[in-house]
Amino acid sequence: MASLRIGWIGTGVMGVSMARHCLTKGFTDFSAYNRTSSKLQPLLELGAKQMDSPRAVAENSDVVFTMVGFPSDVRDVILHSEKGVLTGLPKGGIIVDMTTSEPSLALEISEAAKSAGKFALDAPVSGGDVGARNGTLSVFVGGEEDVLERVKPILETFSGTIAHMGPAGCGQHTKAGNQVTICSNMIGMCEGLMYAHAAGLDLENYLQAISKGAAASFSLTALGPRIIKGDLNPGFYVEHFVKDLGIAVQEAQRLKLGLPGLGLAHQLYLSLLACGDGRLGTQSLIRAIERLNSRKIC
Amino acid sequence: MASLRIGWIGTGVMGVSMARHCLTKGFTDFSAYNRTSSKLQPLLELGAKQMDSPRAVAENSDVVFTMVGFPSDVRDVILHSEKGVLTGLPKGGIIVDMTTSEPSLALEISEAAKSAGKFALDAPVSGGDVGARNGTLSVFVGGEEDVLERVKPILETFSGTIAHMGPAGCGQHTKAGNQVTICSNMIGMCEGLMYAHAAGLDLENYLQAISKGAAASFSLTALGPRIIKGDLNPGFYVEHFVKDLGIAVQEAQRLKLGLPGLGLAHQLYLSLLACGDGRLGTQSLIRAIERLNSRKIC
Repeated sequence: MASLRIGWIGTGVMGVSMARHCLTKGFTDFSAYNRTSSKLQPLLELGAKQMDSPRAVAENSDVVFTMVGFPSDVRDVILHSEKGVLTGLPKGGIIVDMTTSEPSLALEISEAAKSAGKFALDAPVSGGDVGARNGTLSVFVGGEEDVLERVKPILETFSGTIAHMGPAGCGQHTKAGNQVTICSNMIGMCEGLMYAHAAGLDLENYLQAISKGAAASFSLTALGPRIIKGDLNPGFYVEHFVKDLGIAVQEAQRLKLGLPGLGLAHQLYLSLLACGDGRLGTQSLIRAIERLNSRKIC
Repeated sequence: MASLRIGWIGTGVMGVSMARHCLTKGFTDFSAYNRTSSKLQPLLELGAKQMDSPRAVAENSDVVFTMVGFPSDVRDVILHSEKGVLTGLPKGGIIVDMTTSEPSLALEISEAAKSAGKFALDAPVSGGDVGARNGTLSVFVGGEEDVLERVKPILETFSGTIAHMGPAGCGQHTKAGNQVTICSNMIGMCEGLMYAHAAGLDLENYLQAISKGAAASFSLTALGPRIIKGDLNPGFYVEHFVKDLGIAVQEAQRLKLGLPGLGLAHQLYLSLLACGDGRLGTQSLIRAIERLNSRKIC
């Protein structure tokens, strides 16, 4: 399997860690592209070859991974008729889009790939920057199962769980449900911290006390301590989470679903964009709760 | 320490499991009272003595634990001038109220105990029926630290974490913050399941896939599978959770805090009471999300 030629497009906070696991765990025939080319540097030092377009990456690859920002980036990188991955990829090649994106776009890419004698999977991930660094991400895969089997050894280099969720689009639907859950978990964590602060509790003691009981969550354990330290640096950007929640809101509307918690979280996160906090980490939701109450806790 | 005489009042879902751990782990001089006396049976079989009032329990005890339903029950059981614990307890005795109750009432009990030459701790728990059964509860303690030290060996029989949070009332404040966090976690879990169902995903597969990533939480792991199986039996009653959230809402108003997620969760849980679901478990929040959307997922 290690003879597979790998292509990687998108080396932001998540992508660079994931690509590093591939490169250092046996997939050394590796070409890469990133819009901001300086962010490729850590991979070039590990032996990756720099390409000047997504198409050029694809021409040198059997499997191309994309981990970019917004659905419009996914469309551009994969479907652009001149510079896109689908044009460059050899017949029988596989596109694995790991960006959190729209289920409908995943379907469109899957159809386009099939028409061209190629294959596509939608495979967004969960687990944050910590999961990417430690190689313990959860991957939610939509598409054909036998195609997934062929790329599994590569996915395994950076993931703890790989779940086949159904046909094309089902990976993205799973990720949308995942984000619906997380956004309310974030509200619960931030409001709990605000309450504890107002009640005069020591926040470190509070966080430690509730972290092992029924309030336990990944959000609480991974992000609570950062909030208390005043560390709002991005593991995952607010602006990307707003994108994710926007997709969930749009899909819920298409499915004719009312989800009031999602609506509240989406609006609170939008208020972070309104205040210029889009490039902070998602734990900055505490800023929205602070501004609501004119009270700083960190 | 095992020579301490233990009193126990309140043997509902949580209380009976906690008391059982005490009894089977060395604290065998054990008297108990419950309003519905049939619920004492499992403890009597382990050697507990049945008493006919909280006062009678206290007269035979060095330390009395109370685990009842509502703040009005706490007031009645502990402070009732004729039949209450405080009247019966020997000088130097300790009252440990483990009910989730009002911080202000915890302060009042602490003052009353001190005036009578006795001691009181507020020590609500988190971890649900699972934590009570397995003896892994988290205990949040308000009151004097040296008093806590004296009862710690008893608390340790049913808990994994014992945290001293500050003076009287701080245990209750911690629990309120804990419930503020949990209620939004519950919204996140239920809305995610509803979304996944509407998107056509297999719910068991969905739940397993997201349970290890950034959406992970105690709620998801402990209660998600029950929802999918249609098991809405109470680990923790909706009516008790509504009481807890009501306390948090009331305290937040006293502290002049706006917590929109808490407000939403409180209203959704109140809608369960409106529909007669008060004696179901807290995972029945899914019923509110189902009713909103005229769509059953279980």
